[in-house]
Amino acid sequence: MTDSRADIVAFADRLALAVERKRSQLVVGLDPRIDLLPMELRGEAVLGRASAADAISRFCKGIVDAVAPYAVAVKPQVAFFEALGSDGWRAFEEVCAYAREVGLLVIADAKRGDIGSTARAYSAAFLEPDGTAPPLADAVTLNPYLGHDSVEPFLLACRRYGAGVFFLVRTSNAGARDIQDATLSDGTALWQHVASLVHEWGEDLVGERGLSSVGAVVGATYPRAIGEARRAMPQAVLLLPGVGAQGATPADVARAFTSGPSSAVVTASRSVIYAFRDAADDWRAAAGREAARLAAEIWAAAGW
Amino acid sequence: MTDSRADIVAFADRLALAVERKRSQLVVGLDPRIDLLPMELRGEAVLGRASAADAISRFCKGIVDAVAPYAVAVKPQVAFFEALGSDGWRAFEEVCAYAREVGLLVIADAKRGDIGSTARAYSAAFLEPDGTAPPLADAVTLNPYLGHDSVEPFLLACRRYGAGVFFLVRTSNAGARDIQDATLSDGTALWQHVASLVHEWGEDLVGERGLSSVGAVVGATYPRAIGEARRAMPQAVLLLPGVGAQGATPADVARAFTSGPSSAVVTASRSVIYAFRDAADDWRAAAGREAARLAAEIWAAAGW
Repeated sequence: MTDSRADIVAFADRLALAVERKRSQLVVGLDPRIDLLPMELRGEAVLGRASAADAISRFCKGIVDAVAPYAVAVKPQVAFFEALGSDGWRAFEEVCAYAREVGLLVIADAKRGDIGSTARAYSAAFLEPDGTAPPLADAVTLNPYLGHDSVEPFLLACRRYGAGVFFLVRTSNAGARDIQDATLSDGTALWQHVASLVHEWGEDLVGERGLSSVGAVVGATYPRAIGEARRAMPQAVLLLPGVGAQGATPADVARAFTSGPSSAVVTASRSVIYAFRDAADDWRAAAGREAARLAAEIWAAAGW
Repeated sequence: MTDSRADIVAFADRLALAVERKRSQLVVGLDPRIDLLPMELRGEAVLGRASAADAISRFCKGIVDAVAPYAVAVKPQVAFFEALGSDGWRAFEEVCAYAREVGLLVIADAKRGDIGSTARAYSAAFLEPDGTAPPLADAVTLNPYLGHDSVEPFLLACRRYGAGVFFLVRTSNAGARDIQDATLSDGTALWQHVASLVHEWGEDLVGERGLSSVGAVVGATYPRAIGEARRAMPQAVLLLPGVGAQGATPADVARAFTSGPSSAVVTASRSVIYAFRDAADDWRAAAGREAARLAAEIWAAAGW
């Protein structure tokens, strides 16, 4: 395991380079569901887990090729691979490696969070090189509920390997209200307290562009929170899910970009990867077209 | 996928039967770390990921055999398997299947939590049968931060397949203070609010013994919380980590058992599975001896 820090470029800076080169803040979420695959792949998938895993691997690689010119990163959702067990994990490894080969950043949507000694193992799983093999992903999503010792191994991976993390702060789903919106004794919401912790955790990991490799997930379905999150975490890269199938629009996320053109990225999953279901042509072409359209719309809304 | 609910025994009832039959509330955590394996297995592990995965599979199966008479369940920590990628996941599947074959319940320590559509995939991964294959685990640990829609697919699996879940409420680590102990506007701690949600989520899943298949993780390292958690969630099975390597003693957890002999289970991981490191004999014998000792001590402290 090499530790040649001179070569290490911070995740936030790598992301910024990609945003500027591609004029895009789009992250395409890879949520491969067997029942939604194109017919030509779904046929294979019924032959068992190994075949199903092969089918989702082929599907995701096809999407990667199609969206690579328009997206800065892909965000494979680990759950959909894990649902196929070890075969699914093999597909996950293939897809991550393939996306990195074609020059996309990979944000593993894993939402992990565990006590310190266990967090080290998750950091190794997702963010650290293993002998001669590169890390699986460039960044990972994390759940902050267990606090600072659950975070530290990942911050170390950010420092040592130029990795990035995105903490769940205020998520895009209806259930976010149950815990994240609980009112604290000072009148603020719990998620705002979490935002202040995320800001602190990221202060030592600010790159050359003034942005931290410790980012935050803030749902685009709750636009008011975006401005508040931006103020509470001025250096964090915000990862904004909820545009597309979940109902938010590119205009809803505009205020996330006040810290710079790469200070936020917008994820779209189902609306891009399953675009063929509302189109007459090839699934790859449909995904590419939708990614191009969305990337341009977000770029315009961001206003840089 | 069969759905013959007449045959389904609730997880809480299956756990109670095991507790009564074995006179034990011990759950052995399987945290396989290559660098801590017995020498005879560590030699193999250096040959690459597949060999390392084989080594941790053999280690965990040996521990399963050794502790089966004294423990009601094993709790494999998914992170340590995931650190070896798809090879590690294959080992995880082997260990879960083996433990179920020898009659132990399996609690997958995965701490998953994601929005509804994704939570369905995680529920499928851990708790649901797949065609002719049984579920990987009997129960899974979950992170509640995303709220009710992240929970529902798992509650459905509890109802349909007799599965169980354990929500993180107040964890055993130092970082638990950062978010879980945040003071709410009514003066209570956030984790107490989470406890009340867990109580609600579990009300429809109470089995014949009066205990719910929706349980809660409460760290034994914070004994005062155990009594408060017990009162807030009178029907929940409490999963208590922190005894052994993390410093808590069986006496610290006594008040968890006021809802019955199977109303709590105590997990010990490193102190059991690596007991051979402080002993002169075989690693299996050392683990069995430590499990027997701990199970008897907890049974006595529980006072039933």
